[in-house]
Amino acid sequence: MQDPPRPTSPAGHVGAVDATVVPRFAGPPTFARLPRLDEVARADVAILGVPFDAGVSYRPGARFGPAHIRAASRLLRPYHPALAVEPFGAQQVVDAGDLGVNPFDLGAAIAAIEDGARSLAEATGATLVTLGGDHTIALPLLRVMRERHGPVAVLHFDAHLDTWDTYFGAPYTHGTPFRRASEEGLIDRTASCHVGIRGPLYAASDLPEDAELGFELVHADEFETLGVAGVVERVRDRLGDAPVYVSVDIDVLDPAYAPGTGTPEAGGLTSRELLGVLRGLDGLHIVGADVVEVAPAYDHAELTGIAAAHVVYDLLGLLARRRDRA
Amino acid sequence: MQDPPRPTSPAGHVGAVDATVVPRFAGPPTFARLPRLDEVARADVAILGVPFDAGVSYRPGARFGPAHIRAASRLLRPYHPALAVEPFGAQQVVDAGDLGVNPFDLGAAIAAIEDGARSLAEATGATLVTLGGDHTIALPLLRVMRERHGPVAVLHFDAHLDTWDTYFGAPYTHGTPFRRASEEGLIDRTASCHVGIRGPLYAASDLPEDAELGFELVHADEFETLGVAGVVERVRDRLGDAPVYVSVDIDVLDPAYAPGTGTPEAGGLTSRELLGVLRGLDGLHIVGADVVEVAPAYDHAELTGIAAAHVVYDLLGLLARRRDRA
Amino acid sequence: MQDPPRPTSPAGHVGAVDATVVPRFAGPPTFARLPRLDEVARADVAILGVPFDAGVSYRPGARFGPAHIRAASRLLRPYHPALAVEPFGAQQVVDAGDLGVNPFDLGAAIAAIEDGARSLAEATGATLVTLGGDHTIALPLLRVMRERHGPVAVLHFDAHLDTWDTYFGAPYTHGTPFRRASEEGLIDRTASCHVGIRGPLYAASDLPEDAELGFELVHADEFETLGVAGVVERVRDRLGDAPVYVSVDIDVLDPAYAPGTGTPEAGGLTSRELLGVLRGLDGLHIVGADVVEVAPAYDHAELTGIAAAHVVYDLLGLLARRRDRA
Amino acid sequence: MQDPPRPTSPAGHVGAVDATVVPRFAGPPTFARLPRLDEVARADVAILGVPFDAGVSYRPGARFGPAHIRAASRLLRPYHPALAVEPFGAQQVVDAGDLGVNPFDLGAAIAAIEDGARSLAEATGATLVTLGGDHTIALPLLRVMRERHGPVAVLHFDAHLDTWDTYFGAPYTHGTPFRRASEEGLIDRTASCHVGIRGPLYAASDLPEDAELGFELVHADEFETLGVAGVVERVRDRLGDAPVYVSVDIDVLDPAYAPGTGTPEAGGLTSRELLGVLRGLDGLHIVGADVVEVAPAYDHAELTGIAAAHVVYDLLGLLARRRDRA
Amino acid sequence: MQDPPRPTSPAGHVGAVDATVVPRFAGPPTFARLPRLDEVARADVAILGVPFDAGVSYRPGARFGPAHIRAASRLLRPYHPALAVEPFGAQQVVDAGDLGVNPFDLGAAIAAIEDGARSLAEATGATLVTLGGDHTIALPLLRVMRERHGPVAVLHFDAHLDTWDTYFGAPYTHGTPFRRASEEGLIDRTASCHVGIRGPLYAASDLPEDAELGFELVHADEFETLGVAGVVERVRDRLGDAPVYVSVDIDVLDPAYAPGTGTPEAGGLTSRELLGVLRGLDGLHIVGADVVEVAPAYDHAELTGIAAAHVVYDLLGLLARRRDRA
Amino acid sequence: MQDPPRPTSPAGHVGAVDATVVPRFAGPPTFARLPRLDEVARADVAILGVPFDAGVSYRPGARFGPAHIRAASRLLRPYHPALAVEPFGAQQVVDAGDLGVNPFDLGAAIAAIEDGARSLAEATGATLVTLGGDHTIALPLLRVMRERHGPVAVLHFDAHLDTWDTYFGAPYTHGTPFRRASEEGLIDRTASCHVGIRGPLYAASDLPEDAELGFELVHADEFETLGVAGVVERVRDRLGDAPVYVSVDIDVLDPAYAPGTGTPEAGGLTSRELLGVLRGLDGLHIVGADVVEVAPAYDHAELTGIAAAHVVYDLLGLLARRRDRA
Repeated sequence: MQDPPRPTSPAGHVGAVDATVVPRFAGPPTFARLPRLDEVARADVAILGVPFDAGVSYRPGARFGPAHIRAASRLLRPYHPALAVEPFGAQQVVDAGDLGVNPFDLGAAIAAIEDGARSLAEATGATLVTLGGDHTIALPLLRVMRERHGPVAVLHFDAHLDTWDTYFGAPYTHGTPFRRASEEGLIDRTASCHVGIRGPLYAASDLPEDAELGFELVHADEFETLGVAGVVERVRDRLGDAPVYVSVDIDVLDPAYAPGTGTPEAGGLTSRELLGVLRGLDGLHIVGADVVEVAPAYDHAELTGIAAAHVVYDLLGLLARRRDRA
Repeated sequence: MQDPPRPTSPAGHVGAVDATVVPRFAGPPTFARLPRLDEVARADVAILGVPFDAGVSYRPGARFGPAHIRAASRLLRPYHPALAVEPFGAQQVVDAGDLGVNPFDLGAAIAAIEDGARSLAEATGATLVTLGGDHTIALPLLRVMRERHGPVAVLHFDAHLDTWDTYFGAPYTHGTPFRRASEEGLIDRTASCHVGIRGPLYAASDLPEDAELGFELVHADEFETLGVAGVVERVRDRLGDAPVYVSVDIDVLDPAYAPGTGTPEAGGLTSRELLGVLRGLDGLHIVGADVVEVAPAYDHAELTGIAAAHVVYDLLGLLARRRDRA
Repeated sequence: MQDPPRPTSPAGHVGAVDATVVPRFAGPPTFARLPRLDEVARADVAILGVPFDAGVSYRPGARFGPAHIRAASRLLRPYHPALAVEPFGAQQVVDAGDLGVNPFDLGAAIAAIEDGARSLAEATGATLVTLGGDHTIALPLLRVMRERHGPVAVLHFDAHLDTWDTYFGAPYTHGTPFRRASEEGLIDRTASCHVGIRGPLYAASDLPEDAELGFELVHADEFETLGVAGVVERVRDRLGDAPVYVSVDIDVLDPAYAPGTGTPEAGGLTSRELLGVLRGLDGLHIVGADVVEVAPAYDHAELTGIAAAHVVYDLLGLLARRRDRA
Repeated sequence: MQDPPRPTSPAGHVGAVDATVVPRFAGPPTFARLPRLDEVARADVAILGVPFDAGVSYRPGARFGPAHIRAASRLLRPYHPALAVEPFGAQQVVDAGDLGVNPFDLGAAIAAIEDGARSLAEATGATLVTLGGDHTIALPLLRVMRERHGPVAVLHFDAHLDTWDTYFGAPYTHGTPFRRASEEGLIDRTASCHVGIRGPLYAASDLPEDAELGFELVHADEFETLGVAGVVERVRDRLGDAPVYVSVDIDVLDPAYAPGTGTPEAGGLTSRELLGVLRGLDGLHIVGADVVEVAPAYDHAELTGIAAAHVVYDLLGLLARRRDRA
Repeated sequence: MQDPPRPTSPAGHVGAVDATVVPRFAGPPTFARLPRLDEVARADVAILGVPFDAGVSYRPGARFGPAHIRAASRLLRPYHPALAVEPFGAQQVVDAGDLGVNPFDLGAAIAAIEDGARSLAEATGATLVTLGGDHTIALPLLRVMRERHGPVAVLHFDAHLDTWDTYFGAPYTHGTPFRRASEEGLIDRTASCHVGIRGPLYAASDLPEDAELGFELVHADEFETLGVAGVVERVRDRLGDAPVYVSVDIDVLDPAYAPGTGTPEAGGLTSRELLGVLRGLDGLHIVGADVVEVAPAYDHAELTGIAAAHVVYDLLGLLARRRDRA
Repeated sequence: MQDPPRPTSPAGHVGAVDATVVPRFAGPPTFARLPRLDEVARADVAILGVPFDAGVSYRPGARFGPAHIRAASRLLRPYHPALAVEPFGAQQVVDAGDLGVNPFDLGAAIAAIEDGARSLAEATGATLVTLGGDHTIALPLLRVMRERHGPVAVLHFDAHLDTWDTYFGAPYTHGTPFRRASEEGLIDRTASCHVGIRGPLYAASDLPEDAELGFELVHADEFETLGVAGVVERVRDRLGDAPVYVSVDIDVLDPAYAPGTGTPEAGGLTSRELLGVLRGLDGLHIVGADVVEVAPAYDHAELTGIAAAHVVYDLLGLLARRRDRA
């Protein structure tokens, strides 16, 4: 119908559809009802869906993740009080739609994700915030990051290390992206870290191997002793001033907070803790991010989708803060 | 990203995204991944969402119906074998998005639906197939039909008559649109009928009052004796050559087939029966249609959404057949 | 608050709360929002809950059945068009609440159900329509029937025979009530029958043993060949003029129609078939009835509860028809 | 049947049905199986259902909230160890049933809620604890509070401020009650506060406007730093000795704890934190309370209903403590 | 613990655990609680799980199908009244466990399924009844059939033809097994047929291409006119005396009966119809069978699993009948 | 098929199936895919299922608990980083299958559980870790403990005291095992304690009575003030060096973390807190354990099952640590 009423910010950015005029259950199904890439002249941040889950080892279904996160993002409003910024007003955020990649051929899919992300980044110059999809997608995304920013510090929120070597002989799966990335020289081994790790491992050697690949580790249990503020300090110390890629596997949250995921582990973070850590990272030089492993068939009442949408919102807030300052 | 690959039919119509190239769980969230209204030059049929449920007397939630039917429509393919037609190839079908109407003021909403539908019909000349929303929306839609086609025969699939007078003194609700429509002279009282009626009524007088308002009635139980073919015959006899508005309340299906609805009644139709009746109506002069009362919060595994999407697909097939012939 | 507006019928019976004045999601949680036993002077039919499931061999949970059926009954309206009668107007129907019986001692529970039902029947003279609870409860109810009416014809809708002998040595369970009833002389062995039987048995001998206990049998598959009308004929022939106790195990419906039950079997009846058979029994001399095995934890969108509530409604309609005629 | 066995406390108050004699899945469906208003001579506290949700901006369904909270309250027992009081023994608590109000006309509904609450308060003198329903209902309830107690301090637990001005031009919705209440002089602007606020706002100006309307604010994130004890101190400081109206929007809990609600926000309170704050408020002069926004269609395993029932139980405990002392 | 009590049939076959002695919710988690392959000396029929779903084009999750069908099979009893046979008594049926195949490499998985099935068939001489997994697995299974029996007639129950050519360039997926099988000469092109086909196709040419590949077709709509008996006749005419491989995609059932599947289509069969057709095939020379596409994450109350388990039970009954006769 | 690849640890113990070779959704359905009792020569720890719930006072369904916990345990890997031990490598852990006990006779069932547990313990010498089932089973298990170890300290995680006297006159239920155990002299009254207690009680006297029966108590609210470390200290002080039986009612977790249980109480523990306390108990002399009250019909996305499986895993880790040291 007629164009939905989207406010333009003082900085000239087209924002989300106004929810006091068009009900949030109506209107365009983009992330937060933001404009599509083709609706605006330029983009500072592009939200990209990668509906892909052929790399999953247990519960599949993350292929439906991007649509689910977008649906859950309808509840977002324009002003982020904790960061005191308008994530959609201080920068032009767009929804770049989905990459449609081959669900039957992992290699072809990884190549297509790399190509698609590179094209989008090159065409727009935008920072990419990617909605997964399973964690396999982090590898091709990091390849693109490396090209543009050199090796990046990876800030990885997850229950799992994702630095295993192979499953069933397969080197490219959702459990191995960060080993491959480290081997390929994509990450800054002096500044990367995992947050929220927990649950059983394959062997005692997993931990030293992971460290060699360049990661420090904040275990989920440490939230009991360090608190959010302490974790923030640990993370900031590790990351320093490096360009940072933030990768959020939604299973970093406890299954109570994120039932809709593929390899849930008890003993996880609350959504308040996860958002609290993110909000503590103001000033970080974020060059890209993903939120992965949302598997809607196991979700209930959009719990997991809402948590993921808030994570994206906070990431956008951090990007906006830095841009404001720049 | 780049434009999704949508085939153009021999007749020059832009179809749905090709599911053998872009996975059905990816790509644009329009109905059946068809083009948006603004993506093509003209439209023969426009699919319009009306996310509205303030007229509901029991379980609310049909406000989320349009998005749910669209999601479930991703499984549709281009060729309809039972009707031997390509519903998206023989005519230009577009998704016209949603009308965003006031959820707090029934009167304002009804006026906005009438205005929105009229504008869309006038601007495009397209036949409207509307995704509800609750059954209240049939009234403003029928007003637009009346303007363009004169009084129309209403072919109404429903468990309920929807010709009650008022609830709590309110004349405009999801239980009253066809009484109001009849009173306003919108319908052809010699050619309208209900199919699938069942369940308790308010009073014995409901039936003669309904007849006076211009409706004949095929009770759900009659499917046991008449079969689909017999019902088709009854319906065709009643409708004759009149211009027809088809209104499908998804609760015409048994709750086993359509749990996601607001006022379920046991003893309903199977989806095969409903689709069978529709497929029997080849040649009918359909001037508009709606599919209403899909309430996703009560759905499971998209059962109700899939049934509704198939109903829309069959309606599009009927429209395409007639256009083919014309 | 103030008394809810309940119409009094011409015959002087207090009916259900008027749903055009008090929304159906409000008001008293009695069956169909009818008066409680203590709110009216007399009762023709008393609806009695027996929340009990200690006799269940597979999925438990029928203890929550009465509350679930009552909740689902809020959608019932006053006039039954298929039977052309007002089930709540032609007779005084009341909700007699629940019998609270021991969940840990099957023997004590059975005795308490027998005592409770007898007291209620004696105190009011009402016909009892009981909401289970598991099928164990049919035995004590039949004992009370026998005292008041002599041996009764049992019209038993079920996927299962329920004439097995023992489980784990236990003679009183939900799989054995009709063997015990037959042994105790509670039923008329010349006029009882099962409808809807299907699924695997324990042994070939189950069928002749069942016949000896006094039952004829309409297999679910016979609905394909006989149709509803043919089944009605079979049943009427069998029952003749005997006083009839109708026992409806909701698992007579296919699991698609009644997922919320304890021992589901594929290949069952549709709700339209079940209601169709009931509606064909006009004139039957029903002296009591139960609807059992509704297990809400396995239900979805109240499917099973709604089907059960409609069964009760049709039973009330049959009772009302007969009373009208008397 | 016979009256269920309800113990009478030493103080002469009729309590809940004894769960060691009548199973908790049986018996009257009142809150905690307490007596109805008409079953006892007097009432100190009246629990009132207001099944209404026409003021909802996103997910509807709170119309089914009162029945859901009552069902979940069956698990409550008589003695509150944390407060060392018998909430049903130290005072006469009754269930006053539901107010049945117009679902199609917000204005009529608000007037009817005001009238109904006033009548009940006047007729009984009881403190009202209201089960919503959506948050719109707080406005008419506060009007009644104002009449009886003068402007009251509002202690508001919520993810949202609910002091927005209008949606779609509508001044009375579930997002605006406290702005209207402040404008109407119903609240004590020196002593009101929000607890649990989080999530995006419409604009930076929302916060100063809210402060002008009379609210202080404890953000959900502050629970990480203050802990429950610190929040209690903040709240007690703010409330002082004022008469207090406690309004609990169940979405103050994280969606993990309260999935069954209409506008969920990640990063919320745990149920232990919410109950902990309430238990810290011993001695408060509570003059009325509500628990709102429970939308059962989105609940699972009665999670949200159970949390809401416990909130009501703690509120009753606080009332009982104060009465004990008086 | 001690061995569960499993009766031995007069023919010397070890049956299922006795459900009147060990509750059906206890005991070994094999299909119907039958013995494992290693528990008995020989096997006439082996039930084999193939948890694999990398060939799925829409909703994944059939990898969890075998465990789900086994869980749902606990309700099966020893005697099949409609076929008058003891499926576990007239032959030795065993559960051969799962084939664990590579989820990341379709080619490797297909080869492993072929090898595993061949080894099992060779080692035991048993007829294989395979629990999927997605429909991709039919191809390697048919290769093994071909080796042992020559080209086989395929009796294929499905909503879809599964004779498409490629998706995303991939020749081996769940939508293509029967084209590949026909091309490889695995099937008898004079005696194969589909039953239950419905829903949209990719192109009008799909049907003649399918016919060339050797299939006749019974459309789901034909059940309305032919009835179960008519379909049986059509199928028997087509199959003649050929050795038959029965492949049942559970989506042949309507989504109401089988919500837990990957590509649901409205307008399908009832479970009574599907079982009715199977029961009509007494005497058929079945050499192998599969039941595929059960995706538990979308199931509810084990609906789909129960239907699938009954299908397996009927297939075992047909095998037992033929063996009895031999 | 062929034996699944299970690694043997340096200590000679057969471990779980290797998940990098056989997908976790395939393979044997034992706990963590460990060997069955009959597959290995000896057992240090035996996991025993007791599918029984006839002692439940509210929501039944724990009879399906053992199968559910086993299914959820498929995600466990071999190395426990927090305890730095291989729970399946440092000792021989086996799955001993289920005890199939009478669901209709509480007394017979309790006797059978006692006999079965004793036989297993005597035959193998293994430490038993039992999967319930409802809490009734703790009594017969404690009788066996007493025989082998003398009175044991009970470390009881639960929302409820479970030291009530009778329900409906029944002395043996899921609410009474620890009173009976204390009366029978099975427990060390100087060293037992409850952790996580919360929610309403029957009477103020419940607490002193509980203390007399030998229990100290850590209330759930104390986690807010003591933190995990403080609770660990309290528990270790209480238990001292006594042989300890650990009994974990999964409802000790908040319903958000464990919806699938029979008598949920708001305000509970997080899974991180529960696992944190367990991990703090290194060195404890555990002689047996149970995890009970998992009711899958109320679970979602296996939340509760996963939490329970992790609890079992941590208990196995504690046993392995002590064995390592011995």
